[in-house]
Amino acid sequence: MRVAVVGAGAVGRSVAELAADYGQEVTMLADSRGAVVDADGVDVAAALSRKEANGSVGDMEVSDALAAEYDVLVEATPTTLGDAEPGFSHVRAALESNRHVVLANKGPVAERYEDLRDLEHGSDGDVLFEATVGGAIPVLSAIDDFGPDHITAARGVLNGTANFILSRMTAEGLDYDHVLSEAQDLGVAEADPSFDVEGTDAALKCVILGNVLHDGGYSLADATVEGIRDIPGSALELAAEDGQTIRLIGEATPDGVRVGPRLVPENGTLAVTGTQNIVQLETTHAGRLNISGRGAGGPETASAVLSDVRRLE
Amino acid sequence: MRVAVVGAGAVGRSVAELAADYGQEVTMLADSRGAVVDADGVDVAAALSRKEANGSVGDMEVSDALAAEYDVLVEATPTTLGDAEPGFSHVRAALESNRHVVLANKGPVAERYEDLRDLEHGSDGDVLFEATVGGAIPVLSAIDDFGPDHITAARGVLNGTANFILSRMTAEGLDYDHVLSEAQDLGVAEADPSFDVEGTDAALKCVILGNVLHDGGYSLADATVEGIRDIPGSALELAAEDGQTIRLIGEATPDGVRVGPRLVPENGTLAVTGTQNIVQLETTHAGRLNISGRGAGGPETASAVLSDVRRLE
Repeated sequence: MRVAVVGAGAVGRSVAELAADYGQEVTMLADSRGAVVDADGVDVAAALSRKEANGSVGDMEVSDALAAEYDVLVEATPTTLGDAEPGFSHVRAALESNRHVVLANKGPVAERYEDLRDLEHGSDGDVLFEATVGGAIPVLSAIDDFGPDHITAARGVLNGTANFILSRMTAEGLDYDHVLSEAQDLGVAEADPSFDVEGTDAALKCVILGNVLHDGGYSLADATVEGIRDIPGSALELAAEDGQTIRLIGEATPDGVRVGPRLVPENGTLAVTGTQNIVQLETTHAGRLNISGRGAGGPETASAVLSDVRRLE
Repeated sequence: MRVAVVGAGAVGRSVAELAADYGQEVTMLADSRGAVVDADGVDVAAALSRKEANGSVGDMEVSDALAAEYDVLVEATPTTLGDAEPGFSHVRAALESNRHVVLANKGPVAERYEDLRDLEHGSDGDVLFEATVGGAIPVLSAIDDFGPDHITAARGVLNGTANFILSRMTAEGLDYDHVLSEAQDLGVAEADPSFDVEGTDAALKCVILGNVLHDGGYSLADATVEGIRDIPGSALELAAEDGQTIRLIGEATPDGVRVGPRLVPENGTLAVTGTQNIVQLETTHAGRLNISGRGAGGPETASAVLSDVRRLE
């Protein structure tokens, strides 16, 4: 397939770099400042070098590039809330010209699910978004396998940064601020960590799960969200005395979407450590299914994107 | 889809009973002694009552029933080794008349993979077999998502009976014979448990994984297999002193297919308890993926079968 990649951060770069290995061809690559188009295949390494040197992969307008020849748009610009722009407009341009869309950007799927599905229904193109929930973990594919009607609830650890901080606080007996700065030094937490530690990122993923399981109806405003900033080290110690630990657990159930710190058994399935993610699906006829792995990272998330691209072939 | 179910053991019965809930229609149901066909939909409850009363779901010859109208054959007769008959002939009949095939029977996929693929290549029908590895766990679907080229190895706990026995031996300090008879009382182990405790069942699943990952080349004869009969309770105690435990681990790697008791960390991901199964996939770009859940059971395995049926729509 001819793939157009919009967004040249960690995920977009990895998609462009790995596409050939997954049998796909990149015919357009764009960042926020410009784009490059080549119907015979973009020279990805050269484009990324140009970005390094000049600040952009190319000098074509992104809006013009979106009109180029391609089969699938990969939308990998940063997640934005509310109107989910500019990602949503990129998706709209692709679907209105009957191309497929694969999203790594959570915004359009979490904040404008009904608008997204409406555009899809009016298009010959399909929309997939495995990479938006749990990075490399094939959660949405598993839900699709069973059928959303056969999944009664989804829950899990969906933010690696928050999980890293809680794991380290528990293992080392350190306080939140200390572990946060360690995580920032390691590149696991961003300079402004609020999206991760306040639970917003996990909530967006649970909103997406809720939308998939219940055919829409949720956005971030519908979620009940509590982060990990206010957990004292003493709470973790008390939990440990009882064989428990604390994890930031998100869930999508018929009662709605919630994210917050929860007590879980310290050697239990949900107590993944470090930046791991896990999702548990409760099924109607097959009990509980657990899927865990790397929930973030450029190549990891790109592999989920490229699996979606393959599904569209 | 019109589904023909051959085999009326726990899995075949569950497939027939749950088909309508998954949007499918059973137009043929057969056991080893007879079959019933109804183009308007078999009355499954009535057929299973007939089997209870008279020993068979119907009085049509199975070979005649295989020529009836249906879109997908579900092959759920008991797994047999070597020529994998009579399952293989059922599959052949369906593919030669251009129907799809979904297997719960491991025999044809483990013992005659190349023959199976040859038949598929000559047919308009496709062959799927998610239910043959790990019951409800969507392992083959995950491999298909990433592409077999992007999975470097698979390993896991693939036999619930053996795992139940090892878990109980560890937790209660009981010896093998004691726990085996307990498992037999609970219906977790069969009267003749050799297929499970000697590693044959786990090996067949790993052979299937090897065939999927490497495009064929394996049968049970190629696997190195060791069971759990000879593990003394003292070995489990020694392992526990070191924070380890013993699990029957199967693996499919470029070096081949092996099954045997292995030391694993006692709170580690592979140390699932009871009848749980787990599979770990090592990927080229997305690290390690863990999938765990119920590896056996009628409704559980049927849900994997019916997911395959949906994929063929």
